[in-house]
Amino acid sequence: MNTKNFMSGEQLLAHWQGHRKVTRRTIEAFPEQELYQFSIGGMRPFSEMVIELLNIGGQALKMIVENSTDKNGGEEIQPTTKLEILAAWDEQTDVINSYFVSLSEERFQETFNLYGEYNFPIYQNILYFIDNEIHHRAQGFVYLRALGIAPPFFWEL
Amino acid sequence: MNTKNFMSGEQLLAHWQGHRKVTRRTIEAFPEQELYQFSIGGMRPFSEMVIELLNIGGQALKMIVENSTDKNGGEEIQPTTKLEILAAWDEQTDVINSYFVSLSEERFQETFNLYGEYNFPIYQNILYFIDNEIHHRAQGFVYLRALGIAPPFFWEL
Repeated sequence: MNTKNFMSGEQLLAHWQGHRKVTRRTIEAFPEQELYQFSIGGMRPFSEMVIELLNIGGQALKMIVENSTDKNGGEEIQPTTKLEILAAWDEQTDVINSYFVSLSEERFQETFNLYGEYNFPIYQNILYFIDNEIHHRAQGFVYLRALGIAPPFFWEL
Repeated sequence: MNTKNFMSGEQLLAHWQGHRKVTRRTIEAFPEQELYQFSIGGMRPFSEMVIELLNIGGQALKMIVENSTDKNGGEEIQPTTKLEILAAWDEQTDVINSYFVSLSEERFQETFNLYGEYNFPIYQNILYFIDNEIHHRAQGFVYLRALGIAPPFFWEL
């Protein structure tokens, strides 16, 4: 651990949930069919990227809190409609909040082998969940633009 | 300031510079002409997104360190070739490192009106620089896929 503290866990959680609101609005902006089918350059449709995100954040935090390094993670979240995706998104909001607060300051600096594969300090694993969400949401923005649909504002957290 | 520390300033800086390496490889992956001309859905070419990034990170940190709220920021960085973009990118690596270390722990929590417009705690302004980079780089990834070019690995920091 180094000397200067950059931000608190509470601030990181608020930042993450702010991003999750923007991602939720990005999902909402997609027509159902395009959410599941539209793609550019052989990439996955946006629904599949979102389902990846649904299966990382809260599930991974649970594994960290419970010290589980199960390769398969928890039970797979596999919504098949836009409404189910949005409902699962909202459920995960609470899952993330409740597991995040169980993490102590010491644990953020502890190395954890997530899925038995990503052996990094927990703060880096958590930053990756957020970065990966920003990454895929931005790809969703390009899909929306290609479909002639305005993506949500980035700032309106 | 809240109770649990999530990460240190040094860790955040290393995280940011790790992302900047991936972004540099993303720039490298573009052929020169496509870097300046290719676009999807009326969006900007990737060169313009990168020039935006070049004009935020180091320049904005300098303004924060010097307590300047000049609307126009510093001198504009406006490279006109791929080689100039990469050279400017490397220059900014050092600019970011040198200004970042001048920031004290207290300043991360201080509210700063960046460009006289974005009035947020400094840690949030800095997170935005990184998030904005991840966002635009991900759009560059879609451009590359649409061009049939494999983007760089995300993990190879």
